[in-house]
Amino acid sequence: MTALIEVPPGLNGVAVADTSIGDVRGDEGFYHYRGLDATALARTHTFEEVWFLLHEGRLPSSDEADEFTRMIAAQRFVPVELVPIVDAAAAAGGEPLAQLRTVLSLGATVLGLRPLIDLDHDTRRAQSLRLAAIVPSVLAALHRRGRGLAIVEPDPALGHAAAYLYETTGERPDPVAVRAIEQYLMLTIDHGFNPSTFTARVVASTGADLADCVCAALGALAGPLHGGAPGRALDALDAIGSPDRAAAWVRAEVAAGRRIMGFGHAVYRSVDPRSVLLRAIAEELAQQLGGELVERAIAVEAEILVTLAELKPDRELPSNVEYYAGVVMASAGVPREMFTPTFAVSRTVGWCVHAVEQAAAGKLIRPAANYVGPEP
Amino acid sequence: MTALIEVPPGLNGVAVADTSIGDVRGDEGFYHYRGLDATALARTHTFEEVWFLLHEGRLPSSDEADEFTRMIAAQRFVPVELVPIVDAAAAAGGEPLAQLRTVLSLGATVLGLRPLIDLDHDTRRAQSLRLAAIVPSVLAALHRRGRGLAIVEPDPALGHAAAYLYETTGERPDPVAVRAIEQYLMLTIDHGFNPSTFTARVVASTGADLADCVCAALGALAGPLHGGAPGRALDALDAIGSPDRAAAWVRAEVAAGRRIMGFGHAVYRSVDPRSVLLRAIAEELAQQLGGELVERAIAVEAEILVTLAELKPDRELPSNVEYYAGVVMASAGVPREMFTPTFAVSRTVGWCVHAVEQAAAGKLIRPAANYVGPEP
Repeated sequence: MTALIEVPPGLNGVAVADTSIGDVRGDEGFYHYRGLDATALARTHTFEEVWFLLHEGRLPSSDEADEFTRMIAAQRFVPVELVPIVDAAAAAGGEPLAQLRTVLSLGATVLGLRPLIDLDHDTRRAQSLRLAAIVPSVLAALHRRGRGLAIVEPDPALGHAAAYLYETTGERPDPVAVRAIEQYLMLTIDHGFNPSTFTARVVASTGADLADCVCAALGALAGPLHGGAPGRALDALDAIGSPDRAAAWVRAEVAAGRRIMGFGHAVYRSVDPRSVLLRAIAEELAQQLGGELVERAIAVEAEILVTLAELKPDRELPSNVEYYAGVVMASAGVPREMFTPTFAVSRTVGWCVHAVEQAAAGKLIRPAANYVGPEP
Repeated sequence: MTALIEVPPGLNGVAVADTSIGDVRGDEGFYHYRGLDATALARTHTFEEVWFLLHEGRLPSSDEADEFTRMIAAQRFVPVELVPIVDAAAAAGGEPLAQLRTVLSLGATVLGLRPLIDLDHDTRRAQSLRLAAIVPSVLAALHRRGRGLAIVEPDPALGHAAAYLYETTGERPDPVAVRAIEQYLMLTIDHGFNPSTFTARVVASTGADLADCVCAALGALAGPLHGGAPGRALDALDAIGSPDRAAAWVRAEVAAGRRIMGFGHAVYRSVDPRSVLLRAIAEELAQQLGGELVERAIAVEAEILVTLAELKPDRELPSNVEYYAGVVMASAGVPREMFTPTFAVSRTVGWCVHAVEQAAAGKLIRPAANYVGPEP
């Protein structure tokens, strides 16, 4: 088929659909949810309030927030029919994100999810809450069963972030750690048409169910160029060791043609606003809980930025969300293999809201290919 | 972010990436693989020969075809580590495509798949063969375990289509049925940037592994507007009953604002070449194996086309691949719940070839959104 329109590689800068969920203004270093500054929300609100905002299009009243929080908590558990799959997936081992997908993949059966095309708007929205609500519990259960530990009974009195940490570790988490993770989760609920969100929308456009959308998005999130980076950024921090070795390490990596994980972003040019707040959260964590990681991360970041500016003078490579995400999660006691899964806890909410919006648009996403092979 | 380029809804007609795998010329009612007419290949070649063509960019010699067929057959079995997941997924019930995804989701662990970004081109290609090779066996195993039947040991002497039917039913399939299914599989290996193939490419662009790509694509294929239609087209044929009731049925459906499954296509205007060959295959099947379905389907098709032409004079709605796909599969003895999974047997090959091509392009697919909500 002849292409009607030529577009830049990777659809970079090409607006492929309308959305009223949020927007990323890369040049301004600013992003928002439903018109409200996302980092400001993360400073002052709860995860459930921001979830409500994404879901309803407005912030809740105090009573509405309480009711929404209770309603989510009541749905936050591993359905009993999924426990055998949790056990089988945990026994097979491998990446937690792949294990989560293995479990959620049967969501249609167990949660009663139906093809979006067959549902009215309210039912779609209710199913989106149900699916996103179970994610932290499923991840925690997989983590524990993989270590031969019992699944922790959910405590409905806890918020989403606290429940996730409690069910993962089996211990009551420190409120400082809970708030840090809650802020991380609020910062990462949504972020434009990133590859996983776009994937969820493409799948939703076929009329498939929400488990189809979320399982697809999880695959994109597993990609090292997308959600797979927080662990790698911290691996780099380990490899570097002390700040005085950072410059030499960056030079060697760049000489070898490798990307520096945690720096640069497809959309943000001069500053990633998530990185700024996550650094502040990390500093707060260090002050409250101690540890040398945060101080070292800040010193290494400064060295990396100077070295990158020298090696790549024509490119702006600010530290991105992944750099301090790893530092915050490690400081809050999240095991490193749970970094990307923690990202999935929040982003599942965004994927579901986008999938419901795309389903309402009712238009199949089916681009054309530019054939460049041998002619018939 | 400000959109640089405005595109039509659904990216319709927008060429989003280069490919040398194949092309769909909707206006001409023609599509090809690597420059060779796909329907001509399906008339005269084996599934493995066409797979080789997609994989290598050229048709194999006779010796190469034999070696490739043996190599695929040797990899076509359910890995023992996956049997517990097969059992758990089969016990949970639900859609076979979701069950397949649940099993393949752990492919990275069990098949040793690694993120595409971490692999060289040859390893990517080898892993793509490995993953696609196990699909028919996993689907057959899920089908049988869900009915309390034992998994059928693969017979490496069988080709891909025969093995799929044999492992599903446990009986040696009729060669006429095998050839019909083999031709269906060849016709559906690849078809431009349809939503599932595009989904696989978006996920591949993040550097994720091939299981991530295929699991995501399976979600898109599950969508009723994409791969979910063959069963629904046959459901419609059941609902219609005899050809003299077809016109009234179509009028009622159109009046209710519903699509007529099996008619119309996003790309083909006047004729879907797959439908033409599938109808001929169906007629051959009826002649050899008997049954009234094919004759009835042909008569109903004629009535539907006349009625649609009257009701929608401004649109061309030819019968598409789904209409006769269902008829062919039913006539060849494929259970109705296995129609879309059978589509997945062939399309997985296409997804994998596309994922490998996208990974080689090395460019993240990350479009922009057109924000239309309240201003910050």
